[in-house]
Amino acid sequence: MDGALRRIGSFIRIEEAVSILVDSVKDVRRVERVDVDSSLGRVLAATITAGRNYPMYDTSHMDGFALNHRDTLSASEERPARLRIAGSIEAGAQHRPELTPGAAMRVLTGAPLPLGADAVVAQEEVKLAGEYIHIKRPVRAGENIDPAGADVREGEALLGAGHRIRPQDVALLHYLGIRWVEVFHRPRVALLVVGDELTDDFEEAARGKVFNTHRRVIEPLTRAAGCEVSYLGIMPDDAELVSQKLREALTSYDVILTIGGSSVSEKDATSLALRRIGAEKMVQGLALQPGRVGGFAIVNGKPIILLPGLIMSTINVFLFLAYPLLKYMQGLEPTPYHARLRARLAEDVRISRYVDFKKVVWVRLEERGEAEYFCYPQLGESSRMSIPVRSHGFIVIGEGVEQVERGAEVVVNLPPT
Amino acid sequence: MDGALRRIGSFIRIEEAVSILVDSVKDVRRVERVDVDSSLGRVLAATITAGRNYPMYDTSHMDGFALNHRDTLSASEERPARLRIAGSIEAGAQHRPELTPGAAMRVLTGAPLPLGADAVVAQEEVKLAGEYIHIKRPVRAGENIDPAGADVREGEALLGAGHRIRPQDVALLHYLGIRWVEVFHRPRVALLVVGDELTDDFEEAARGKVFNTHRRVIEPLTRAAGCEVSYLGIMPDDAELVSQKLREALTSYDVILTIGGSSVSEKDATSLALRRIGAEKMVQGLALQPGRVGGFAIVNGKPIILLPGLIMSTINVFLFLAYPLLKYMQGLEPTPYHARLRARLAEDVRISRYVDFKKVVWVRLEERGEAEYFCYPQLGESSRMSIPVRSHGFIVIGEGVEQVERGAEVVVNLPPT
Repeated sequence: MDGALRRIGSFIRIEEAVSILVDSVKDVRRVERVDVDSSLGRVLAATITAGRNYPMYDTSHMDGFALNHRDTLSASEERPARLRIAGSIEAGAQHRPELTPGAAMRVLTGAPLPLGADAVVAQEEVKLAGEYIHIKRPVRAGENIDPAGADVREGEALLGAGHRIRPQDVALLHYLGIRWVEVFHRPRVALLVVGDELTDDFEEAARGKVFNTHRRVIEPLTRAAGCEVSYLGIMPDDAELVSQKLREALTSYDVILTIGGSSVSEKDATSLALRRIGAEKMVQGLALQPGRVGGFAIVNGKPIILLPGLIMSTINVFLFLAYPLLKYMQGLEPTPYHARLRARLAEDVRISRYVDFKKVVWVRLEERGEAEYFCYPQLGESSRMSIPVRSHGFIVIGEGVEQVERGAEVVVNLPPT
Repeated sequence: MDGALRRIGSFIRIEEAVSILVDSVKDVRRVERVDVDSSLGRVLAATITAGRNYPMYDTSHMDGFALNHRDTLSASEERPARLRIAGSIEAGAQHRPELTPGAAMRVLTGAPLPLGADAVVAQEEVKLAGEYIHIKRPVRAGENIDPAGADVREGEALLGAGHRIRPQDVALLHYLGIRWVEVFHRPRVALLVVGDELTDDFEEAARGKVFNTHRRVIEPLTRAAGCEVSYLGIMPDDAELVSQKLREALTSYDVILTIGGSSVSEKDATSLALRRIGAEKMVQGLALQPGRVGGFAIVNGKPIILLPGLIMSTINVFLFLAYPLLKYMQGLEPTPYHARLRARLAEDVRISRYVDFKKVVWVRLEERGEAEYFCYPQLGESSRMSIPVRSHGFIVIGEGVEQVERGAEVVVNLPPT
């Protein structure tokens, strides 16, 4: 055990904790190739660059007639220009015929212009007369045309490494003719719950055991963080059994999350188990409240995150340690929020305990007017299941700050969904 | 056909279009019962009310000793109170033993207090002496206790109809002992693409057909809107074939989305097909730009949304017609955004065409400072695949407004992901 075994009472800052975690995995981020249609939600590991101009040629963005503007220079209501219809071109056509002077060609939206054409006039604007069209005004060069390269320029870097692929990106990749992309590997995460009192069985819960609610929060949050999650079940408060299970899990998973048994007491099986396994580094005690009994260990180079058993601590330690780590492993910024917005605090917040810690206060958002947000602090004991349900996100009150006044503008962090 | 067949040139306002669509389905919203573990992401159709107090009893939020504060009234450093340890209670215990005066009971975090106890003292604070503990200060009534009902009060309405279930809500439902919930039915949506030039086949695309990119945007957006989507393939520009396909689809799906063939021209197979089928109502032409050639029809009481073929119009009409409809069918507010935030416009926007329409301008967000957003308009022809890729959301410029100045605070609408 080369890292210090830190006892509760010496609490490390979240920034330091995340930096240790990120360092521990930074050489093992893996990349894989997936086909574009399976890439939705994945994070690009390499920049996507356009191999050519899009559109490749000037194209029409109307159903109408392609022509050369010079043939309409003197057109007027009284003396319309008269152009011969010399065929048609459809969207997606590969062949670009030549347009002879004095002629026009019927084009559909998205069709490439014939060689020699430099404008399109809408079909509603022309008068058809047999093989001819009449145009009553001079058409400007470039009118109703999307010039070559107007959409995407050759060599342009369109999507960077670290970009999470959205539906429109999948469409663009196909548009660029790209069928495979390099993306970061989805971390394989194991979730282990520790506690004699817990059960996943409704009947047992009805007979007095505590139903394993916390798994129901952490499992989907981990999935929302872009990972594959395997739930390994509930272990009793038995350090030997827990350490066996952790050893097994370390062979198959990239990251292990444990819930419960994380503080330092006679019953804290997870902490005891990690000491038995021989962690390279072990941190217990975070300067985060709720969340101070959370921690982590690095074993065989793999992170094990210790989520405490009280729900608000479970969620906070997930968001402040596990989520940034899992994001970093996928090439994303290691932040504890999915998105953030500004809101006005609707009530004073006063902190009386753990003032020197980073305090996490969950808040309910209320929209008054378009995108004008107010937020209501949801305070109470860390065991309250209803706090995250009454909330949409959380604000962070910095180390040493004791109160934030009603009316202050605050940053509300939104968790992944 | 009782509704007016509206020609392009008479454009209806989006608000009116959504109101017709919503009216058409308002009597057919369906509700189903799902088990709580399958309810994530579903929308509640009935309010969830707590049947009792949570916690049911006063519980400890520390590992320590439950006692009655009266037994410590005169405790001091010099003369500690001495209480006999009369057993222990664990979290989840169903039986609440009686505490006799002068005794304390060991309690773990989350354990119910014994009858007669009104406070908990942390184990670090007491001195153990055989069967006794020594306490050096008076303990206040209620100290370290979560009172009965502090988390959830009996009869409290915790989650309302129209609430989309998040991970923490699943946990709370289990905590309340609820195993089944009533949720709105997920609309079954069929997606049909129309166009001779299109293909889903890479080889055909390499030989000159246009790859069906738009499906890759609309299919996942529909799924992100909470629906089940079936892709029915590409139909040629043949009104008879399209109308056959639509007739079939109407028997199995709640909503049909079509892409392409929606404007009024000799080749617009979708429009022609709908006239053939005999729509109860048919609207073509929306006062929305890009998107003006979009529309919808109601056939046998079921909505068919006509998404135009140019990508920005396809997406805008999806977001302004289909998305609000699909949200409404699930009990949500029929809005065209998933979330919205305020940003400062980084460049002037000037509108020269369709000024009387609602204009949709896609924007790229840039965060400068915490949650301080600036947005950059991504202008250009509606056919540009790169616009939604360069953007995070869109602003809406109201009817008649011709420009918005750089520096103005605007509302940025974010699409579902």
